[in-house]
Amino acid sequence: MEKTVVKYLEKPKLRKPVLIEGLPGIGNVGRISAGYLVTELKAKKFAELYSPHFLPLVVIQPGGVARLLKGEFYYYKGSKRDLIILVGDSQSITPQGYYEISGKIIDVAKEMKVSEIITLGGLGVERIVKSPRIIGAANNEKLVRRYSKYGIVFDDTAAANIIGISGLLLGLAEIENIDAVCMLAETQGFPLVIADPIAADTMLRVLSKILNLKIDLSKLDAEARELEEKIRKTEELQKQMLEKLEKEEKTQLQYIG
Amino acid sequence: MEKTVVKYLEKPKLRKPVLIEGLPGIGNVGRISAGYLVTELKAKKFAELYSPHFLPLVVIQPGGVARLLKGEFYYYKGSKRDLIILVGDSQSITPQGYYEISGKIIDVAKEMKVSEIITLGGLGVERIVKSPRIIGAANNEKLVRRYSKYGIVFDDTAAANIIGISGLLLGLAEIENIDAVCMLAETQGFPLVIADPIAADTMLRVLSKILNLKIDLSKLDAEARELEEKIRKTEELQKQMLEKLEKEEKTQLQYIG
Amino acid sequence: MEKTVVKYLEKPKLRKPVLIEGLPGIGNVGRISAGYLVTELKAKKFAELYSPHFLPLVVIQPGGVARLLKGEFYYYKGSKRDLIILVGDSQSITPQGYYEISGKIIDVAKEMKVSEIITLGGLGVERIVKSPRIIGAANNEKLVRRYSKYGIVFDDTAAANIIGISGLLLGLAEIENIDAVCMLAETQGFPLVIADPIAADTMLRVLSKILNLKIDLSKLDAEARELEEKIRKTEELQKQMLEKLEKEEKTQLQYIG
Amino acid sequence: MEKTVVKYLEKPKLRKPVLIEGLPGIGNVGRISAGYLVTELKAKKFAELYSPHFLPLVVIQPGGVARLLKGEFYYYKGSKRDLIILVGDSQSITPQGYYEISGKIIDVAKEMKVSEIITLGGLGVERIVKSPRIIGAANNEKLVRRYSKYGIVFDDTAAANIIGISGLLLGLAEIENIDAVCMLAETQGFPLVIADPIAADTMLRVLSKILNLKIDLSKLDAEARELEEKIRKTEELQKQMLEKLEKEEKTQLQYIG
Repeated sequence: MEKTVVKYLEKPKLRKPVLIEGLPGIGNVGRISAGYLVTELKAKKFAELYSPHFLPLVVIQPGGVARLLKGEFYYYKGSKRDLIILVGDSQSITPQGYYEISGKIIDVAKEMKVSEIITLGGLGVERIVKSPRIIGAANNEKLVRRYSKYGIVFDDTAAANIIGISGLLLGLAEIENIDAVCMLAETQGFPLVIADPIAADTMLRVLSKILNLKIDLSKLDAEARELEEKIRKTEELQKQMLEKLEKEEKTQLQYIG
Repeated sequence: MEKTVVKYLEKPKLRKPVLIEGLPGIGNVGRISAGYLVTELKAKKFAELYSPHFLPLVVIQPGGVARLLKGEFYYYKGSKRDLIILVGDSQSITPQGYYEISGKIIDVAKEMKVSEIITLGGLGVERIVKSPRIIGAANNEKLVRRYSKYGIVFDDTAAANIIGISGLLLGLAEIENIDAVCMLAETQGFPLVIADPIAADTMLRVLSKILNLKIDLSKLDAEARELEEKIRKTEELQKQMLEKLEKEEKTQLQYIG
Repeated sequence: MEKTVVKYLEKPKLRKPVLIEGLPGIGNVGRISAGYLVTELKAKKFAELYSPHFLPLVVIQPGGVARLLKGEFYYYKGSKRDLIILVGDSQSITPQGYYEISGKIIDVAKEMKVSEIITLGGLGVERIVKSPRIIGAANNEKLVRRYSKYGIVFDDTAAANIIGISGLLLGLAEIENIDAVCMLAETQGFPLVIADPIAADTMLRVLSKILNLKIDLSKLDAEARELEEKIRKTEELQKQMLEKLEKEEKTQLQYIG
Repeated sequence: MEKTVVKYLEKPKLRKPVLIEGLPGIGNVGRISAGYLVTELKAKKFAELYSPHFLPLVVIQPGGVARLLKGEFYYYKGSKRDLIILVGDSQSITPQGYYEISGKIIDVAKEMKVSEIITLGGLGVERIVKSPRIIGAANNEKLVRRYSKYGIVFDDTAAANIIGISGLLLGLAEIENIDAVCMLAETQGFPLVIADPIAADTMLRVLSKILNLKIDLSKLDAEARELEEKIRKTEELQKQMLEKLEKEEKTQLQYIG
């Protein structure tokens, strides 16, 4: 696999869907929020994204089935608006990979005739946040005005730039004339492994209003805690993995027969 | 986006235009000079360049609209010579990216039937410079002779090589038989964040003579100072960004579910 | 050579062969096992894989003939099942290269109508292992059930992920609907240069049962020891090589005339 | 420029020419030897090679004309055998670049129907060498036998591998069924900037015999010394360049407006 690829499981017919993106990042706010939406809306997976810019490994799941790191596209047919929700394991491990992966996501958006993209993330403020604000950025002024009404704060002094896929999607969508807005929930940001359910809760409340969804948030805290548990566990395994990766590299350098 | 791309907003008809390039670099001499030309000549943007070899982020502008890092091509229809002016946010973050981006700029030059390329930059001399010289390099001897008349000093002991896009454009233009000259204004070069309006002033005086332009330089000092202010501000934000980028990387390594 | 390439020496007609992969890694268990199979079965080479993601050098063989680093595909026509065996010098030296090389191996699997892939490796447990277990992972549950019968332990707490080509082949095979299983023999893992014949012995016993092969394992110990000797020798040469590589780099930076 | 390119100035008709390669490396033995051949034989340049895997800069030559780093192909019509001689500024700055550049050189060899490739280099032995041996490696045994007659020592204990383009050409030529041999002259290897005229002298004597050429070696010492002077000069400029490159990188990170 030389390039990032998207594999469609099906091509659902959707009415100008909104694409919600939530990948790992600060406080994992985006991922928790988007993942919770997938679960609560019983959204259906229709495509997967693989990339050589992910770590070169497979994850072994309970039971022994291994799988590639990937992004997953789900759809939900709403009474008012159809949704596509993108969740995933990882961002890119190379700077260029961010552009390549984001470009492929935009290709899916075009293929599915997405009318609008909403990217979700956390904004590390390095202090404990009890009532997080949602800081926004959009790829045109019309969107800034529209989303300001939902209490989203458009303030370039709060965040001067957005690093990674949540940011690049805004810029790349603009080239394709697709509306895109990014919502960043304030979160402590340290230590990084702590998932922030409060930020995700705030995010999902605003998102529900925007999308006219009724989401039961009562399980969010438990889910975030479960995710945190999983993260704590994988954190340790991750360390082992990185050590193994280093060992592999050393091994490979030492063995040429 | 897997490769550097140029998006044309329009394709103006120009008469064998001169392409002026001014991207960030030492003392930001090239960028200040080219940017001032754009403002003073009220040049019109006709194309944008995006690259996966730029930092993987969007910049949030005052008001909340985010945009990709990019290069911008402007044109100006002069009474004597038409101009294309290239300004931008960034050079490449990878060595190969310099070649790829420079190659795309040459593609634009060919598309627009550019007759000559003039690249602008600073030459760090590590001392305070009151009367900067303009050190030159060209891609053929005919140009050396022509530009020597304007007081440009062609002296390989002053600069042994030119790193980055300002340099590569000369070499790549030669392959395409396009005349190209590089003008480097002497500047202190330290500390790097200080924009050098004196060097830019000297640069613009020489450039005006070459291009037969009447440029009012009275606002240059103010504009350079404003730019410096902006730089000082972004410098701090940049640090935050780099810290965030490192955190992102750590986060992503820690979270694979 | 810009991309990984496979050069076919011949295209043997095989009946839905099983592809066994054994490349260098922890304890070199995979490579020793697969290499021993090639020798014992007198398997015939039919293709070679070259990659720009291997170290940029040629190895000088006794007698003075130099060769590229490579992967080698062998075939064996069995009474019950045909086999393809992949052995090689090296894994990738870049993260993306792992995906590119693994993708090319999958291309060969598709070309040769491979019905199943078995990847072999070591699992470093950082203690002396007298009776190594074979830890497994597969790309679907049916395989987990089938291979559990052979005493292979499918347990994600023993290994949370599989780094490198042995792992990626499982994930990439799944996209192409090819069954794939990975067998990791427990091994000390330190020091890395010690080849582990006990782990390889266990691996080959299980593999023989799976493939219905009669393999004489009496020469394995000697062969592993010989390989160890070779490794110890190359280890020292490798160090020299890395030093040379560094020197080359310095030289090249110092010399531009 | 996204990939390594070769630009032909002309396509001379040659009779199964021998390709001699001499690029920078340990003791610069290959480059000095091949460069001396070009001068003495008054060989004519017919093609240039450019690569994004070279340093991203242009070199300013005395007089002020700047040029890209490049490889240069020359030809010489001999009474017995026609020659192609490749000299150049640089090897690759990335591991993959070595493969890409070497692959392009092989493309030229195929285009020009090269019958044999001879690559030249130095072998650092970390002691003063008064009577250097020529250590060889070839891509088949027939060549080993043929070149052993010229006193070339084929001994894998002297050199276990050949790093860089001189090595890769052997391996890549084999894939294309082109005979290729590498000659490494023993040289001290430290300090790296010292060009070794004694090693080059030995190299050229052997090469003259092989190619049936009469080369006047009386100017070699002077030329090597001149080259050394040039190297000492460029060494210092190189340091400045690397410092500038680092500064550029810092600058570019600090300036995004």
